[in-house]
Amino acid sequence: MKLCRFGQPGQERPGLIDAEGKIRDLSAHVTDITPTELSPEKLAQLSDIDVSTLPVVDAGVRYGTPVSGVRKFIAIGLNYRDHAEEAGMAIPTEPVVFTKAITCISGPNDDIVQPPHSTKLDWELELGVIIGTEARFVSEEDALNYVAGYAVINDVSERAFQLQSSQWDKGKGCDTFGPIGPWLVTRDEVPDPQNLNMWLDVNGERRQAGNSKTMIFTVAEIVSYLSRYITLQPGDVICTGTPPGVGMGIKPDPVYLNTGDTIRLWIEGLGEQQQRVVSAS
Amino acid sequence: MKLCRFGQPGQERPGLIDAEGKIRDLSAHVTDITPTELSPEKLAQLSDIDVSTLPVVDAGVRYGTPVSGVRKFIAIGLNYRDHAEEAGMAIPTEPVVFTKAITCISGPNDDIVQPPHSTKLDWELELGVIIGTEARFVSEEDALNYVAGYAVINDVSERAFQLQSSQWDKGKGCDTFGPIGPWLVTRDEVPDPQNLNMWLDVNGERRQAGNSKTMIFTVAEIVSYLSRYITLQPGDVICTGTPPGVGMGIKPDPVYLNTGDTIRLWIEGLGEQQQRVVSAS
Repeated sequence: MKLCRFGQPGQERPGLIDAEGKIRDLSAHVTDITPTELSPEKLAQLSDIDVSTLPVVDAGVRYGTPVSGVRKFIAIGLNYRDHAEEAGMAIPTEPVVFTKAITCISGPNDDIVQPPHSTKLDWELELGVIIGTEARFVSEEDALNYVAGYAVINDVSERAFQLQSSQWDKGKGCDTFGPIGPWLVTRDEVPDPQNLNMWLDVNGERRQAGNSKTMIFTVAEIVSYLSRYITLQPGDVICTGTPPGVGMGIKPDPVYLNTGDTIRLWIEGLGEQQQRVVSAS
Repeated sequence: MKLCRFGQPGQERPGLIDAEGKIRDLSAHVTDITPTELSPEKLAQLSDIDVSTLPVVDAGVRYGTPVSGVRKFIAIGLNYRDHAEEAGMAIPTEPVVFTKAITCISGPNDDIVQPPHSTKLDWELELGVIIGTEARFVSEEDALNYVAGYAVINDVSERAFQLQSSQWDKGKGCDTFGPIGPWLVTRDEVPDPQNLNMWLDVNGERRQAGNSKTMIFTVAEIVSYLSRYITLQPGDVICTGTPPGVGMGIKPDPVYLNTGDTIRLWIEGLGEQQQRVVSAS
């Protein structure tokens, strides 16, 4: 299934995408796509619904983030071999774990607001993992059973803020720095999360192109690893790192985002996002 | 007011502390102390209650964390001048911002569970700030108006986990690493958050002793600063750094916590915590 939430901010309704790519309204079956709706049992109930009975929603509707009430938004840094090489950084021997503030979460096509004093606004195309079942000390072999599904994420980053101290979280959590969606694609539709093509364009120019097969730590390894330190709960979102081509890494000079820029992101099977950069004022 | 939540985990009821130090049951007036109960208006309503009409609660009851449904748990590193000197670290010129996972939050006297493979479990006595009103780009002069109150926090840290990569969050967010309480002491009862004595004992030995006057960045500066990067919401909790005397800094050799150890923490006007370290197995 491809689950979504559609409508104006704060008033989103639950939906799913039918075989023709149309949004169908799920409101008669669930009031919202919340963390508790992501358990295997609840997802099985949703998958039993006869989609043809659901009202079709206008194509032009806004997408919200595909799950509401996210409690934790955890990210892994430097997790693509080719990106680490591009950045001239050593290949990590353990996942590098940081946090995005949940207040940064926004819809997949919502504007990215450039904060005041921002000079180094950057993009990061990432495969997002959304937890369905509470996970503590789960093995790598079993880890994907705790995943509800996947989504496209733009791990928007302000490099000056991020690198001003040793800790990155400050430059990762500004409002609108976490577009998620358009869909939560359930795990059964993503048989191999380690073989997904992906790309990101800025103003029509291809900036990132990669495949999740060059991840240093796989989704299963990340979920298992995190669960040994931090209890993962239903609805928790994990960014799994970005492939080569972020603005900071462009040679000879970095390229950062400015007001008016347009970003498009796509991951195979997970859909496409598009954001416009706007000024805070 | 001194607000609290009492009872078994997951079944806590709201309470407040009367002039004699007894817990009074607030259940007839509010169902829980949630983030929305921390607005100035809601706190004013609670303060209008005639405390003598509230049932007295048995003194031996367990304290939960004084606010439920915390959404963000943000921490500031190296924020005491004397601690930075002790650690041989440069005095930060900007606050160092990191995150504790909200799943680490526990009651003030609950056991601290030492995770498997933990070898460097450490304590950090901290003044906690609990937000009452959403804060975005607030000035230092106005910042304290967004604070609902204060609480004692033990920013429990596993140094091996924390320092294994450049990012600290992994070693700060294990389950039980965030005892908060016993009380949320409302702002009106803490006229100067920059002049609070505090201490922490391990097995009866004084390990930390300090005063919030040696903070590098004041509470008002921290709230204002954070609000320029991350939107602060009601119920968000901020740890403001630790005074000298953490285990990692003890000379000639660091001292870490072991199963069976007992920790006591106290901050002037905010009450006392006591935790026992237990094994995960």
